[in-house]
Amino acid sequence: MSIAAKYFPNEPEKPVIKTETIPGPVTVKKLEELGQVFDNRAAYFITDYYNSIGNYIADADGNLYLDAYAQIASIALGYNNPEILKAAKSDQMAVALANRPALACFPSTDYQSILEEGILAAAPKGFTHVWTAMTGSDANETAYKAALMLQAQKRRGGAEKPFSPEELTSVMNNESPGASDMAILSFEKGFHGRLFGSLSTTRSKAIHKLDIPAFNWPKAPFPSLKYPLEKYAEENKAEELKCLEEFEKVVTEWPTKIAAIIVEPIQSEGGDNHATSIFFQGLRDITLKHDILMIVDEVQTGVGASGRMWCHEIYNISPAPDMVTFSKKFQAAGFYFRDAALQPNQPFRQFNTWCGDPSKAILARTIYQEIKANNLIENAKETGAYLYEKLSAVSSAYPEKLFNLRGQESGTFIAWDMPSAKVRDDFTRKCRSLGLNIGGCGDYSVRLRPTLTFEKKHAAVLVDIVEKAVSQL
Amino acid sequence: MSIAAKYFPNEPEKPVIKTETIPGPVTVKKLEELGQVFDNRAAYFITDYYNSIGNYIADADGNLYLDAYAQIASIALGYNNPEILKAAKSDQMAVALANRPALACFPSTDYQSILEEGILAAAPKGFTHVWTAMTGSDANETAYKAALMLQAQKRRGGAEKPFSPEELTSVMNNESPGASDMAILSFEKGFHGRLFGSLSTTRSKAIHKLDIPAFNWPKAPFPSLKYPLEKYAEENKAEELKCLEEFEKVVTEWPTKIAAIIVEPIQSEGGDNHATSIFFQGLRDITLKHDILMIVDEVQTGVGASGRMWCHEIYNISPAPDMVTFSKKFQAAGFYFRDAALQPNQPFRQFNTWCGDPSKAILARTIYQEIKANNLIENAKETGAYLYEKLSAVSSAYPEKLFNLRGQESGTFIAWDMPSAKVRDDFTRKCRSLGLNIGGCGDYSVRLRPTLTFEKKHAAVLVDIVEKAVSQL
Repeated sequence: MSIAAKYFPNEPEKPVIKTETIPGPVTVKKLEELGQVFDNRAAYFITDYYNSIGNYIADADGNLYLDAYAQIASIALGYNNPEILKAAKSDQMAVALANRPALACFPSTDYQSILEEGILAAAPKGFTHVWTAMTGSDANETAYKAALMLQAQKRRGGAEKPFSPEELTSVMNNESPGASDMAILSFEKGFHGRLFGSLSTTRSKAIHKLDIPAFNWPKAPFPSLKYPLEKYAEENKAEELKCLEEFEKVVTEWPTKIAAIIVEPIQSEGGDNHATSIFFQGLRDITLKHDILMIVDEVQTGVGASGRMWCHEIYNISPAPDMVTFSKKFQAAGFYFRDAALQPNQPFRQFNTWCGDPSKAILARTIYQEIKANNLIENAKETGAYLYEKLSAVSSAYPEKLFNLRGQESGTFIAWDMPSAKVRDDFTRKCRSLGLNIGGCGDYSVRLRPTLTFEKKHAAVLVDIVEKAVSQL
Repeated sequence: MSIAAKYFPNEPEKPVIKTETIPGPVTVKKLEELGQVFDNRAAYFITDYYNSIGNYIADADGNLYLDAYAQIASIALGYNNPEILKAAKSDQMAVALANRPALACFPSTDYQSILEEGILAAAPKGFTHVWTAMTGSDANETAYKAALMLQAQKRRGGAEKPFSPEELTSVMNNESPGASDMAILSFEKGFHGRLFGSLSTTRSKAIHKLDIPAFNWPKAPFPSLKYPLEKYAEENKAEELKCLEEFEKVVTEWPTKIAAIIVEPIQSEGGDNHATSIFFQGLRDITLKHDILMIVDEVQTGVGASGRMWCHEIYNISPAPDMVTFSKKFQAAGFYFRDAALQPNQPFRQFNTWCGDPSKAILARTIYQEIKANNLIENAKETGAYLYEKLSAVSSAYPEKLFNLRGQESGTFIAWDMPSAKVRDDFTRKCRSLGLNIGGCGDYSVRLRPTLTFEKKHAAVLVDIVEKAVSQL
């Protein structure tokens, strides 16, 4: 029996489009009203989550779309998944919601088991510690803080060395040496969040960054590979080696210490840009050589869709990165680490009121357990292989309109390019009017981000609509 | 019938301390285990939320403490409040948890009503818009972003003015003019969060800031008043005027544009430092004079405990501040604003994947509705008056040990000083061993942060324990 059929016996077999225009009149009216109090100019449609089911998302007009976007890659098990609803209705959840703890001061009797049966059980091999946060931006920024505090401690000469009087004074004026002059390096087109530290490492688009102060931190080029990867293996290798060389040059020449780098296993928001183990292992080698910590940002790539629990596992990076951050599909956010020294030398340094949220950790536990119980990672692999094959055929039929298909090795984490932002946006709109909700990324790319319960039968519907929409461009 | 008795018919009448030492042996063992995977060196005790009730918090050893700290001011209605549990168990909550939306792209059919019946109904007068976030740090940083984007737009000459090519290029290198050179001003001893932008405005303690890069942003002195306020009215007025003068000097001399100031109505983490309407109105006047936006940080002070829904209402600031941020007791986080221009001129600027969380907004709605239905703000006022009177007597009896009592006008938002950090820490430990969970703030202060269902009967128990603990110092 199919996974989706087991979870969602009433999941429809295909989309249902009832309104002549998309968005429909109810959405238009409700968006107008909501817009009076809450900025919704980015809205696709008002969503009826009560009538969404499995891989189908309902709008306020009664239209039902196959969803290949899944709340920007954030729905793991499908809409109204019965196991998630069961967890949501549990006494444990009610107690977690009604008594939200300040976790570092008043940890709950059950937080350890919730972590160990969920978030920690799901950790990449060798990652024994976790610090929980609330969002992807928080996850990355708390990881930066851990890296910066450890590097400062090393510079100071060890965990026992006290802060100097000059550090203690200058930091209250936001000046060095107390306020660190160290940097976090990120890669061109990378996306790591929207708050001030994470936004300083985000290099995706100007509109994400304009008018916001940013730290003077370095960036390095991310490989610009040709697809399919294997066809261009030699050229791609040369490009990756060139980027590594550039990276080491930046590292060597940057005037202050680089505490850590952050990199996505597949650059997602920036356009689904892939690299290979040549690049990632090269980064690891160079970071070790220069005593720089390596943070892998799995906020969008993590939790199964890539055909691995964690996408970076594809590259067999050795030794493993120092930290791995997560959020989105896990609902809970935070970072894993291996070296206990990434826990600062004193309490109240990596600290805040909530330090995470047990209600989200409970959901993460169910998500992890369902992934294991139903081989959902294997499903992502199989569905991905099917999608890649069928979309290759579409690309062959329309090579000027749908090209640079990528993600052959990364489950359903598949994307392609279109001729321009305008064509891409026309295409995604057309898809919606045909009953497929699908998202863009980068300047002119389309990304697939379905749930982990997206199967071949859903993929077949998707491919039909994509083909139809492309043919109409 | 008392409010607590109505909500919590089984709430105990006094603490129950069963173990010879606090923390007890079960807590010690469980902290050791949890510490292997999650940093809990700041922990007071492992908390049994299942057996906590109303204003009493249970630990893993079966001890039951009267709670005047309430998860660092974050529990509004008491532990396991039946109305919150009802909301937590509702179908609406289950759907919100199971289908967490990317709110700006796929807002739910019910988000508007959830906001309007809760967060927006609770807004300070005249605040018609809200942007939702996840934590206090997020709330403040998104408010900073709104301020910075509006100020840059004004400098550019209006919402229609395009970004210059130089802005579009420089921002990708984290350089001005694209990355803003504007600043956010905060006040000495202020606390506004722990992420990179919010931490740059936090001026509480070195340990909160050390080793983390910070923006070169200005600070100004916050008044250091003498208590009780009315006794020292003249001196305090002089101090406030001096601080305002200093503030205007910083504003005038700072080399770049100050986009906004952020200020707490009562500086909380920094030591429960009060100021009066002289200071706050002065800030408003000077910010208007210099075209600076005014953000009031109500993350800790907001939602009723001050004897007002929003603490800054005490000062009758006119015109009202531009933005008010919230989190903690509301579970939901974000900022209110009055001027629609604080919504950026394009979508995807104030944007992220989740943009808040309906499950928290549902809790905020229940919290607001219960506050109204049960006059909980009035209760905070009455309980606060009682506490202040009784604690004044304790202070008179032990003037060398418990002094600078403050908060006569701010509900249960009451604090006092002790001779040193060491004495204060001994005191709070002693209180716990006598069955009272109580928190410190600043260098040597104790702050009261009970729930809104804390009544005179609880206050009487608190005062008894405080008196006993002080007498034993």
